[in-house]
Amino acid sequence: MHDVARLAGVSAKTVSNVINGYPHVREATRAKVQLAIDKLGYELNVTARNLRLGRTGLITLALPELKLPYFAEFADEAIRAAEARGLRVLIEQTNADRARELAVLHGVRRVMTDGLIFSPLALGPDDIRLFQVDFPLVLLGERVFGSGNDHVAVDNVAGARAATQHLIEGGRRRIAVVGSHPDEPVGAPALRERGYREALAGAGIAVDEALIRPGQAWHMSVGAQLTDELIASGVAFDAVFALNDALALGVLHSLHQHRIKVPAQVAVIGFDDVEESAYVRPTLSSVSPGREQIATTAIDLLLQRIAESPGTPAGERAPARRVLAEFSLVPRQSSGAR
Amino acid sequence: MHDVARLAGVSAKTVSNVINGYPHVREATRAKVQLAIDKLGYELNVTARNLRLGRTGLITLALPELKLPYFAEFADEAIRAAEARGLRVLIEQTNADRARELAVLHGVRRVMTDGLIFSPLALGPDDIRLFQVDFPLVLLGERVFGSGNDHVAVDNVAGARAATQHLIEGGRRRIAVVGSHPDEPVGAPALRERGYREALAGAGIAVDEALIRPGQAWHMSVGAQLTDELIASGVAFDAVFALNDALALGVLHSLHQHRIKVPAQVAVIGFDDVEESAYVRPTLSSVSPGREQIATTAIDLLLQRIAESPGTPAGERAPARRVLAEFSLVPRQSSGAR
Repeated sequence: MHDVARLAGVSAKTVSNVINGYPHVREATRAKVQLAIDKLGYELNVTARNLRLGRTGLITLALPELKLPYFAEFADEAIRAAEARGLRVLIEQTNADRARELAVLHGVRRVMTDGLIFSPLALGPDDIRLFQVDFPLVLLGERVFGSGNDHVAVDNVAGARAATQHLIEGGRRRIAVVGSHPDEPVGAPALRERGYREALAGAGIAVDEALIRPGQAWHMSVGAQLTDELIASGVAFDAVFALNDALALGVLHSLHQHRIKVPAQVAVIGFDDVEESAYVRPTLSSVSPGREQIATTAIDLLLQRIAESPGTPAGERAPARRVLAEFSLVPRQSSGAR
Repeated sequence: MHDVARLAGVSAKTVSNVINGYPHVREATRAKVQLAIDKLGYELNVTARNLRLGRTGLITLALPELKLPYFAEFADEAIRAAEARGLRVLIEQTNADRARELAVLHGVRRVMTDGLIFSPLALGPDDIRLFQVDFPLVLLGERVFGSGNDHVAVDNVAGARAATQHLIEGGRRRIAVVGSHPDEPVGAPALRERGYREALAGAGIAVDEALIRPGQAWHMSVGAQLTDELIASGVAFDAVFALNDALALGVLHSLHQHRIKVPAQVAVIGFDDVEESAYVRPTLSSVSPGREQIATTAIDLLLQRIAESPGTPAGERAPARRVLAEFSLVPRQSSGAR
């Protein structure tokens, strides 16, 4: 009763009046108290069920870097989806470091959580056996396929193809790519570059390799620096496909500093559709990757694994599922949309 | 040995060779193996110590909203600082909701973590007794003072005064404020508005209340909308102090849409110095609040409380400490800096 009163912001006497059906209580107060009772009851139920099942109600979300807007917005979505299902989220930041990513999977710190949602950036296809773990795991991203885990991914190839086609439809032919990872055959950079190449091939435009600019970290500073270098190289270009929005914000910054007009001289499109895209100048065209769908799907798949594990023999478990989220093209001023 | 091999990315045989001092091992390989041994040893030590002391090695960081860039960057700093000290961070997102904030302090979910770093936005000075808890707690923000807890805060008044003085020194006299909370006597909005008023008073400029625009959520969309309304109201202004950078990005967006030149016609300054500030157009002047200092100080204060709790009688505990972080003014193009 004390807890209910505290949560509802009323006195214990008022709570008692509501519970006993005393008539002289305002309807708004009664509703507040009822809400607090429901909420505490729900929490107690969840906690009791977790205890009974030997669970903690905690899941781990392992991401490369929280201050990249894409991952911050993704974490926000995932926390909301988890909370709606009575779960709390422990965030591990790996900084795309191999040792940290291994520790997420196998370190002694992987205790006390019921399952893991993991977006690896350093581990790759050579590490598939490391992902064959005995706890509930849902993978995100494009680094590791075929490991037998549930997997939720952005439709990178189709999204990048749509972005590039959008630029081509706007009359662009010399489309630069900013942020490629030429030494990595797998991962989002390779898939987005593939979408770009497919779109060019589809339009009968030859690829000029001088237009594809490698850049490891997908940060604003890198996007600005790569664009500075592209301009300094003297290669002609009339559009830039930045492989994420953070890079694209750096591209816009560099173009403006060089007094190159967007979109009149150079059209720009990014990928991720972070909130800033709608507010920068010019507003940034982008590809919305289906962030909310990815977050809720990952949580739901993990919950199903948690429900069947660890009692279920391997042969009776649901087969691994792979979900590609639905993307959408978001044209804005930077590619000539109004 | 298996774990070390996995972490180092070498075979178990190689690990054995290194451990036995076998000479024909490359120096780089030897270093990798030694690093893995050190790392695993450290983790095991931390885990063993936690078990011995009845601790989990987990702390909770409760924040209003992770997708606001300020909090995302803050969480990034806090996770780094915590990891450097062997702690993992559980993030609770409150959405500035009173019931969620109460649950952070008193809900049944507050289990399994050694301590709490909490930035409340809904609870306030009337709730001081709710903060008198029996677990290690460090408060952030400006809502609750005098609760007897350790507290780390932004120097809001001085930072806002410096921002406003900077605009006045640039010759501005009609300085609008975007994002005030007139109904809240406490909190960052009130303190930043106070700094604004102090700067105007110091320069002998009368406050025009029509220039102070209330706005609850400090989001980009709100900054844009408040600026639209300010322009529509017909009130003359030659500068805007947006109470955070997200609002300021919206202000820049609205001014540009109304073809008002920044800084020629209207100078703009924000608060927080988020990464985007250096990349938007024009680049955004801001106040850097000392985010890294706040994060590391909060973690260090919490660790000290964890070390003394719960065995230490109240009378023997260290007195509550209050730390105001050092801010710095960051002039950029939006206020006329080069």
